[in-house]
Amino acid sequence: MRGTPIEQASGTLKVSTRGPGFTDITTKVADWLTEIGATDGVAHLFMRHTSASLLIQENADPDVLRDLVDALSRLAPEGPHYRHDSEGPDDMPAHIKAMLMPVSVTIPVASGRMRLGTWQGIYVCEHRARPHTREIALHYMGARAG
Amino acid sequence: MRGTPIEQASGTLKVSTRGPGFTDITTKVADWLTEIGATDGVAHLFMRHTSASLLIQENADPDVLRDLVDALSRLAPEGPHYRHDSEGPDDMPAHIKAMLMPVSVTIPVASGRMRLGTWQGIYVCEHRARPHTREIALHYMGARAG
Amino acid sequence: MRGTPIEQASGTLKVSTRGPGFTDITTKVADWLTEIGATDGVAHLFMRHTSASLLIQENADPDVLRDLVDALSRLAPEGPHYRHDSEGPDDMPAHIKAMLMPVSVTIPVASGRMRLGTWQGIYVCEHRARPHTREIALHYMGARAG
Repeated sequence: MRGTPIEQASGTLKVSTRGPGFTDITTKVADWLTEIGATDGVAHLFMRHTSASLLIQENADPDVLRDLVDALSRLAPEGPHYRHDSEGPDDMPAHIKAMLMPVSVTIPVASGRMRLGTWQGIYVCEHRARPHTREIALHYMGARAG
Repeated sequence: MRGTPIEQASGTLKVSTRGPGFTDITTKVADWLTEIGATDGVAHLFMRHTSASLLIQENADPDVLRDLVDALSRLAPEGPHYRHDSEGPDDMPAHIKAMLMPVSVTIPVASGRMRLGTWQGIYVCEHRARPHTREIALHYMGARAG
Repeated sequence: MRGTPIEQASGTLKVSTRGPGFTDITTKVADWLTEIGATDGVAHLFMRHTSASLLIQENADPDVLRDLVDALSRLAPEGPHYRHDSEGPDDMPAHIKAMLMPVSVTIPVASGRMRLGTWQGIYVCEHRARPHTREIALHYMGARAG
């Protein structure tokens, strides 16, 4: 890869969520990389919210994702013990979950494809009870075709 | 952004903490990016310690941050069940908290400004009981003005 | 660093784990950076699995790492309450642990050395009960010697 000029590109992905759970964005990120002509470099994803997260997790058995949602609820239960309660009982647990999960993820790209493992998908994880529109900032740094 | 040469810059941010809790470093990071002439690229932040963390979280209601500190104490309580206790009862819980929170964060930058969401602030989270001076390694990769 | 051309390099690190616990890969990552002539830039590490993690933690007292393994088991215990149980009782807890810990880590590099703190080591954290071979995608972006 030596000598190839490094370029960059940025974008935004908007994702509509349907309450607690995971939305697979792997294909959308891959499509964006294709669109900008990414070949070899790194893709940076950044969640622009404090009550939703990015996660790279198993994409085979959907039960895994359901169990992960339950596990998050056990780690950050709703309850009367929070000072911050003005935005509903699900808000403070949502912030705690966001604290424990990635806000930014960096994925190497080779020959135009993300170097994800066989079972890895990229997800937006919604922590609030109600649907939201979430923005993910995308950035690519590396070689570009064309 | 195509064709603009990619350059880089590095720096160090020193932050004095006052025991468990959050210190907002958003403005300091933004000022550093302005100082080095960052325009479009990515900012990498790296915490050079194992008992403090970086966190991007809500910057509106300070009660959120207090509740986050409490939540961390519930997830990693002090107690007699740790092998490692030579550095005080707060040390092992601090390592556990650091394991669960980011050591590095990457934030896209556009037109000289970090692409943070409206309610996102960047924080140093101190996990030890006593004040410490914490070093954050800063790195910028992208286009630079001037 | 201005004006120095930015180049990149990518690689793969294969690590054999021995069941739950930490494997120090600091020297291997440092050696790779030396091998590719890294001088000033950033190193990106990416775990290509959903039941193992990357972690930067204390490298002095091995008891810290043992206590961290115990803490993870308390946060994500085995039990009959998971839907996903077809891959053994340790599989779903492994996914939960992987959700709570980094899949990607970015470390600034200066004068050929990672800017790790004095007590920071880079670890592969195995969450499954049995030994596995884990692949970590490596990427370097920055100036290169030679």
